[in-house]
Amino acid sequence: MPESIESLIVHERVRAARQHIERADEVTLARQAALSAIPAPTGAEGARAARVAELFREAGLWEVGVDDVGNVTGWAGARGGEPVVLSAHLDTVFGPELDVSVDRAASKRGRLAGPGISDNARGLAALVAVAEALVRARVATARPVLFAATVGEEGSGDLRGVKHLFRNGTRPHAFIALDGAGMERIVHRALGSRRYRVTYRGPGGHSWAAFGVANPANAVGRAAALLADLPVQHSPRSTCAVVRLGGGTGLNSIPQEAWLDLDLRSEDPRTLAELDDAVRATLSRALGDENRRRTAGTPPLELDLQQVGDRPSGLTPRAHPLVQAAIAATRALGHTHELACASTDANVPIALGVPAIALGAGGRGGNAHLPTEWYENDDGALGVVRALLVTAAMAEVR
Amino acid sequence: MPESIESLIVHERVRAARQHIERADEVTLARQAALSAIPAPTGAEGARAARVAELFREAGLWEVGVDDVGNVTGWAGARGGEPVVLSAHLDTVFGPELDVSVDRAASKRGRLAGPGISDNARGLAALVAVAEALVRARVATARPVLFAATVGEEGSGDLRGVKHLFRNGTRPHAFIALDGAGMERIVHRALGSRRYRVTYRGPGGHSWAAFGVANPANAVGRAAALLADLPVQHSPRSTCAVVRLGGGTGLNSIPQEAWLDLDLRSEDPRTLAELDDAVRATLSRALGDENRRRTAGTPPLELDLQQVGDRPSGLTPRAHPLVQAAIAATRALGHTHELACASTDANVPIALGVPAIALGAGGRGGNAHLPTEWYENDDGALGVVRALLVTAAMAEVR
Repeated sequence: MPESIESLIVHERVRAARQHIERADEVTLARQAALSAIPAPTGAEGARAARVAELFREAGLWEVGVDDVGNVTGWAGARGGEPVVLSAHLDTVFGPELDVSVDRAASKRGRLAGPGISDNARGLAALVAVAEALVRARVATARPVLFAATVGEEGSGDLRGVKHLFRNGTRPHAFIALDGAGMERIVHRALGSRRYRVTYRGPGGHSWAAFGVANPANAVGRAAALLADLPVQHSPRSTCAVVRLGGGTGLNSIPQEAWLDLDLRSEDPRTLAELDDAVRATLSRALGDENRRRTAGTPPLELDLQQVGDRPSGLTPRAHPLVQAAIAATRALGHTHELACASTDANVPIALGVPAIALGAGGRGGNAHLPTEWYENDDGALGVVRALLVTAAMAEVR
Repeated sequence: MPESIESLIVHERVRAARQHIERADEVTLARQAALSAIPAPTGAEGARAARVAELFREAGLWEVGVDDVGNVTGWAGARGGEPVVLSAHLDTVFGPELDVSVDRAASKRGRLAGPGISDNARGLAALVAVAEALVRARVATARPVLFAATVGEEGSGDLRGVKHLFRNGTRPHAFIALDGAGMERIVHRALGSRRYRVTYRGPGGHSWAAFGVANPANAVGRAAALLADLPVQHSPRSTCAVVRLGGGTGLNSIPQEAWLDLDLRSEDPRTLAELDDAVRATLSRALGDENRRRTAGTPPLELDLQQVGDRPSGLTPRAHPLVQAAIAATRALGHTHELACASTDANVPIALGVPAIALGAGGRGGNAHLPTEWYENDDGALGVVRALLVTAAMAEVR
């Protein structure tokens, strides 16, 4: 059983750790700005990972290293036993072409502006701050604590880093992801998604001379139109969006290939599977509709369906001690909790049956996933303290 | 009235010009290969134009120059009066990235292989050969002959060069375009086209959080699906093809913009106009269909329709002396004519009421608009002689 948040808040060593976090508030903010300014597009997180590894070592974690896919890991607490994992993702949604330098806009609350400044430079800085506080304040725990900075959380990363953490059969006692800013939200429901690149291919040809052959652009259109008219599901909420489409080379050619990208999401695994079936049937229907219209004797289109993303869904019940600890810690620090559903690194442990949540790492942020992203350090240290309390509770402070 | 082909064939100076063309067959072939190897993507014809201007000067044309849009022009024959225009387009469908060097494949017929070798290096080489023959053989004509190598005939060029030739109100007596290889086809019907970039724009947003907003990709899909199901028109033949489509930026965003490119064609101007009306109505219907499905209170999509191409249609009646001269010349040279419909530089004069045709420039070609294009000089000089005879007939040899 985890210790109660009430008893932890008055525990001598935990109090010392909290004081360390509060005193280090400006240091954490400076680290957040510095980490944010190191480019870390999904798939190219190496430079930022190297800096995080240095910070883990300086904080006094043991066995700090970078694993095969690029995750940075380090340990604190007891040696041996099922660990509690505290994680934050390294990557940003921004490509290498975007300038990620940070603007320290003048503000009494220390406002920072820059792409990725909250999501997830805040999470990373808080991760380091919790590690440092646990080690410096000599908080002894019954369980080991694994600190992990993960790669590939965003978009096409498809939770690659966290999937790798669990590949060798590791089954932690609990998993807590620090993702972005905020002090209220407790993500305990994992929003699942499946992503597809759908390609139709055919003979193509001259837009006048060959007109009448099956046109892959028409098939893409038919698919998008049919998908747009699928019934909308509200409970459990599920969505199916055409997010990209393309095809064709010239102004006077029927293309040989056209494609669309689909993003399917649901809070519920079974509903997501049903939606997936409906989508596949619809894509085949679009193929048939276009092929039936083609000139006799010309080749039919073919459909190629590539899955490019798979994020499992599921939930950690609100009654679970991990969720209850997070609720209690939020309240004890004077805030009102908000239970939420989102797609985070916590999706993967949740789907494996490991209790997991994602928490904001304090302060306030906005415009996530946009170049205009910002962060305000409005009692930001409280978010780091919350992460400390939940981790300490699950790791069982002695 | 043009002179009969029968009388021209035995005319002393025309016979001399013909002999010049036949003796220069290998020179013409070498020029064709050399011109083909000078890159001339639509919109970047300058280098090839400069070489054609040199050849015009060497041939003895007067007032050789390059006009504001890049057409190369030069004169022969009488000074003053409505000219006969003999033209060939400079540009190729191939982009600057494609290697346009020419492979002189071993063959008794002098096979050449290279992108653009027939379309339109053959036309350009024949244009120069006719100019040289008229001047060297001192063929005197009652009308001036304007030799024009035009820019922007292909695809996105939208007949830019030939449109410019007629911008100042010039109304020639007749217009003959040399386009590609061949000895049979006489293009007297102008295949008209209209091209559109159709863009739908909306608020966009996160594919989960904002799902339910009107999606521009869905509107593109609905438009393509509805257009694909428009009734097919066979007589006069008309076509409407989606040739390109695109939109979207990321895997988890509803795009703010999505687009498709349309190519509408018809042999008949009125039918093309009717098709145009039907297409516009369909694009608006797709807009309405998508907007009706959107979540209440969210902004509607907007439709932006940009015309990116306009090639007029029409015909020069088969009974017109120009078409009759081309038929007679083809027969007199031992070939069977074939009246045809195509989109060429002749579209523009035809739509302005100027008698115009397009002719192949001799030999045999294949794989036009593909990197594997080829040319075989199978009695190729005859095609140049045909161009000479039709030009001489319309310019009224003295």
